[in-house]
Amino acid sequence: MRIALIQFEPVFGERDRNVERLIALCRENPADLYVLPELAYTGYQFVSAEETRSLADGLESPRIRAFRAAARDLDAAIVFGFPEISGASVYNASLAALPDGRSYLYRKTHLFYKETLYFSPGDTGFVVFEFRGARLGLAICFDWFFPESFRTLALKGADIVAHCSNLVMPYCQRADFAAAVQNRIFIATANRVGSEQREDERLTFTGESVLVSPKGEYLLRGPVDGEAVLVAEIDPEQARDKSLNRYNNVFAMRRTEMYSL
Amino acid sequence: MRIALIQFEPVFGERDRNVERLIALCRENPADLYVLPELAYTGYQFVSAEETRSLADGLESPRIRAFRAAARDLDAAIVFGFPEISGASVYNASLAALPDGRSYLYRKTHLFYKETLYFSPGDTGFVVFEFRGARLGLAICFDWFFPESFRTLALKGADIVAHCSNLVMPYCQRADFAAAVQNRIFIATANRVGSEQREDERLTFTGESVLVSPKGEYLLRGPVDGEAVLVAEIDPEQARDKSLNRYNNVFAMRRTEMYSL
Repeated sequence: MRIALIQFEPVFGERDRNVERLIALCRENPADLYVLPELAYTGYQFVSAEETRSLADGLESPRIRAFRAAARDLDAAIVFGFPEISGASVYNASLAALPDGRSYLYRKTHLFYKETLYFSPGDTGFVVFEFRGARLGLAICFDWFFPESFRTLALKGADIVAHCSNLVMPYCQRADFAAAVQNRIFIATANRVGSEQREDERLTFTGESVLVSPKGEYLLRGPVDGEAVLVAEIDPEQARDKSLNRYNNVFAMRRTEMYSL
Repeated sequence: MRIALIQFEPVFGERDRNVERLIALCRENPADLYVLPELAYTGYQFVSAEETRSLADGLESPRIRAFRAAARDLDAAIVFGFPEISGASVYNASLAALPDGRSYLYRKTHLFYKETLYFSPGDTGFVVFEFRGARLGLAICFDWFFPESFRTLALKGADIVAHCSNLVMPYCQRADFAAAVQNRIFIATANRVGSEQREDERLTFTGESVLVSPKGEYLLRGPVDGEAVLVAEIDPEQARDKSLNRYNNVFAMRRTEMYSL
């Protein structure tokens, strides 16, 4: 399976133009699975609930339909983050658009910083589905801070976590090592770059998108600054073997009765 | 609080001599809390249940009493790993000997490799206790591979995890970063060095004992090879603040209903 991480800098609020550019980047870099950043085509730093709502999309919006059409055209899965409006709620969501027309929606479980002001906490739980013989799991950015997130996805069978991100702290890319090794999964953290100044706050995103293997190898690592498309070929089967040696299957030997979680 | 990591190479089977040397190393390096390796004074690579039993100690053995006396004399806590015999069972255990005469026993929850042949799985659960205004938690070596271990200790209130280790894989020292940051605790991994050849297997221990802060700083890092005593002064209070910013208290905002653990 060929995975592409799209490290991208959206222009705030320019939804259609950003979607066009993202799809063009996919088109130019053949892959089976594209992982795009969190809030990939809107920008990140909303300053009011009204603004967030005005830039949010329902699942039938032209932009969502454009990604689904691109998945069919490119015969690939595209996982992207976006602000999703549903009734009275707006979620920080990601959608996996698959070439056969299926799609899977995930609403971010752990909201970061001022997202707590403008988004509703996700209510989907952690989502895992099959694609081309691999099992893909969905997580968004700050979910990484809670070891329960990747653990839950791995226990639900995920081989690869598509981790759409807008990271501003300097930790996640380095911490992915532990989660990949402990869960013996691939972690694909697609991060954005650039910075946004809204009102009196500037946020700078840390780039350095990474793909980490179940053995903790950094198969891909993007630049700290600047857009980039990073592509690697992986064998998702490597995530299926939870045995470290003949005595330790690290999933079978979990001792849940000893955990206070 | 002054923490000392004792990176040590025991001579296999030479229990009394190893205990003497360990206590001498403590005596020469004043600290409040000493963290010693797993199976600190016996060596690691047992080749039969009989041998393991013959080198195991009950809680009233001369060696355990020597450590408890040293804790009183040095006015410090000493946490060390040892094979503990109790009735028909032998555990891979650690004991925290405190200067006021208290002691806390932990029996390793997750047994590594051939330990599964010679030890019983721990039945104490994860242990946390107070010492000089700090809350100390106990873990042993391979427990690190299960994110539930440090998470459980942190949720039970541990500020500092005394992590007695005999690491042979190349992962833990690097993975401590994630556990320290995510749980916002200090992790003190005291590892042994050297190698052991028993029967037809040679194991080499990876040294590089580390002390990691709640912000992921490596306050101490020992050499890969060679004994070392590493000392740092820390403020355990730093582990009490689970707020990353005014919107995210990373313990209060856990969403246990979303986890499948």
